[in-house]
Amino acid sequence: MIPVSDLVVKLHERAVRSVALQFPAGLARQAPQVAAALRDAGFFVVVSGDPCYGACDLALDTLLHADVLVHFGHAPVEDRPDVIYEPVRFDFDVNALEAALPLLRTRRIGLVTTVQHVHLLSAMAAYLRERGIEAVVAPGDGRTPLVGQVLGCNFAAARATGADEILFVGTGVFHPIGIQLATRSRVVALDPYTRKAQEVDADRLVRRRAAVMAKAEGAESFGIIVSTKSGQQRMGLARRLVALSDRAVLVMMREVSPGELLDLGFAAYVNTACPRLAYDDQARFPVPVLTPPEFEILCGARSWDDYTIDEYLAA
Amino acid sequence: MIPVSDLVVKLHERAVRSVALQFPAGLARQAPQVAAALRDAGFFVVVSGDPCYGACDLALDTLLHADVLVHFGHAPVEDRPDVIYEPVRFDFDVNALEAALPLLRTRRIGLVTTVQHVHLLSAMAAYLRERGIEAVVAPGDGRTPLVGQVLGCNFAAARATGADEILFVGTGVFHPIGIQLATRSRVVALDPYTRKAQEVDADRLVRRRAAVMAKAEGAESFGIIVSTKSGQQRMGLARRLVALSDRAVLVMMREVSPGELLDLGFAAYVNTACPRLAYDDQARFPVPVLTPPEFEILCGARSWDDYTIDEYLAA
Repeated sequence: MIPVSDLVVKLHERAVRSVALQFPAGLARQAPQVAAALRDAGFFVVVSGDPCYGACDLALDTLLHADVLVHFGHAPVEDRPDVIYEPVRFDFDVNALEAALPLLRTRRIGLVTTVQHVHLLSAMAAYLRERGIEAVVAPGDGRTPLVGQVLGCNFAAARATGADEILFVGTGVFHPIGIQLATRSRVVALDPYTRKAQEVDADRLVRRRAAVMAKAEGAESFGIIVSTKSGQQRMGLARRLVALSDRAVLVMMREVSPGELLDLGFAAYVNTACPRLAYDDQARFPVPVLTPPEFEILCGARSWDDYTIDEYLAA
Repeated sequence: MIPVSDLVVKLHERAVRSVALQFPAGLARQAPQVAAALRDAGFFVVVSGDPCYGACDLALDTLLHADVLVHFGHAPVEDRPDVIYEPVRFDFDVNALEAALPLLRTRRIGLVTTVQHVHLLSAMAAYLRERGIEAVVAPGDGRTPLVGQVLGCNFAAARATGADEILFVGTGVFHPIGIQLATRSRVVALDPYTRKAQEVDADRLVRRRAAVMAKAEGAESFGIIVSTKSGQQRMGLARRLVALSDRAVLVMMREVSPGELLDLGFAAYVNTACPRLAYDDQARFPVPVLTPPEFEILCGARSWDDYTIDEYLAA
C-alpha cells in the first residue's frame, strides 16, 4: 500500500484540514485504504473517482471541496501551489542495462526515462561510465520537471541531450518512437524488466499514419478536438487548425472515446488533447483521428518532409 | 434536422458572436450540420462533445469559450442567463389516451408528462374533459419549470396535483413507478406511441432494492458519490450521509460507470448524482450502489416504512 506517514507530515506542515485525493488507474484500488488512513488521521477526505492517466488531468473539480489536492503517481506538468505530487518509484537492477550495450554505436549517448525510474538515472549513468560510455542526462522543459524525464507527449529532455544516439529505459515502444521522430536521432529502447533491448524504427508508425491521413482526405466534416482537462487544453493550436479548413468545427471533450466520436457524427477528427490518443487508439476509433501536424499536411500548410510527432511542449 | 433559423434570430437579438452547442445523446449526430449552419451564419462555434442526458449536465467548460451555450433537447433545471434552452417537441395523436380510459377509476386525476410532450397537455386535458374526466395539471418546482412536467429525479408536478390517481403519458415505466413511490397515489402509465396503458406497481422495484441493500449491509467501505455535473451536485446531502458511517468516504465523479466503480475498489457506493443511476444501472454495476434513503435505512437513520424514491427537489 502507498505509505501515508510522510504525507501526513506534509499535510500538517501545510496546516490543511481537508484533502482531495487523486489516483491514476493503476493505483485507484488503493483509494479506500489511503482515504481511510487520512480520515483516521483527522483530515476531511474527498476522493476523485474519475479516470486519470497523468498529471495533465488534475481533479480541480474535487479540489474545489478541499484545501489541497494530493495527486499520486506522476510528476507535475504544471506548478500549482495547492497540489501535492506524490510520484511513485519503481526500482529495477541497473545491471539490466547490459542488454543495451551491444546495440550502442557511440561512446556518448543521451539517456532518458519515465517518471517512475528517474531516481535511477544516476546509477544508470554510473553503470555506463564504468563501461566507457558517457551518458548525457539533460533537463527537459516545464512539463517534465525532473532531469532526464520524458512523457508520451514531451521529448524535450531527449532533444536537449544533443546526442546522435539516445537510450530510452522504460516499458513500451511509444516513447522511443516518439523520441526518434522528435529528435531524428538513433534510438535504442531497453525494457529494464524483460531486459529486452531494440533499436526502434518509426517507419511503420509513419506508414500507418499516412494511411489514416489518406482516409481522412475526402472527409466532409472535421471535428477539431480540444480537451477540457487541466493540462491538455491547446485552444490556441485548435483555433489555428480550425482556420485552415471551412469543413472544420471545434469540439470540446473530456474523454475522447470511440462512442462519443461516433455519436457526434463528424467524418473525421483532429486531436489536440493527449497526443498519444491518435497514435495508440486509432484502431478503436470509428473514423480517422489525425494529429495536428497531419491535419496541417492535409490542408497544405506543412510539407510531408516535415512530418513529425505531436508534442505538447511547455509554453 | 433541427431548424436553426429561429435560433439565429435569438442569437442576433443577444448580439452574441460565439456560440457553444450541446446536444443530448439522441441528437448528437446533428452536431456537424447544426454547427456548420451557425458557422456559415457568421458565428464562432464550439461543440460540446461529452455525453449528455439532461439539462442537469450543462457544458460549462465549453461555455467558457463562447458568449452563450445553446442546450438542445431539455427544459432548464436551473436558470442561467448565458444558456439558451431549445427543448425538442415530439407529437402524438391525443386519441391515444383512449387506451388509458378503462384503467382510470376516478373522475378527477392528475396528469403529467415529460418535456417532449408538455406542449400536448392542454389537448390531452381537453380530450379527457370531453369524456367526463377532470385532469389536474399542476406546476412542479424550480427543476421542472413547465407546468405538468416530471423528470426521472423530480415528481413535484405529480405531487402538486393532490390527486389520488395520476395518469403519466410517456415512454418507459421508471417515471410512473417513481411517481407512485413519491406520491403513494394510484398511477396509470400510457405509452402514446404503442398505445399500451398499464397500472404500475412499485413493489417489484422495492423488493429488488431490498436485496441490494442486504448485499451492502456488511460492506467494509462505502464511497459516497458526489457528481461534478452542474445540476447533479448534492454536496450537502453527501456530507450528511458520510457522517452516518465511519466506513464512508466522499468520492467525486463525473460519469458514474461500472469500470470506475470497480477500479476504485470501494465495497459499496451511495449515489447522490443522478437518482436514476442506482435504479436503472444496478445490473451493470459490480457492487451495490444504494440511494441516499436506502443508506439512511441501512445506518438506522430512517425506518423501512419510510422507504421512498430518491428525488432531487429544487432548493
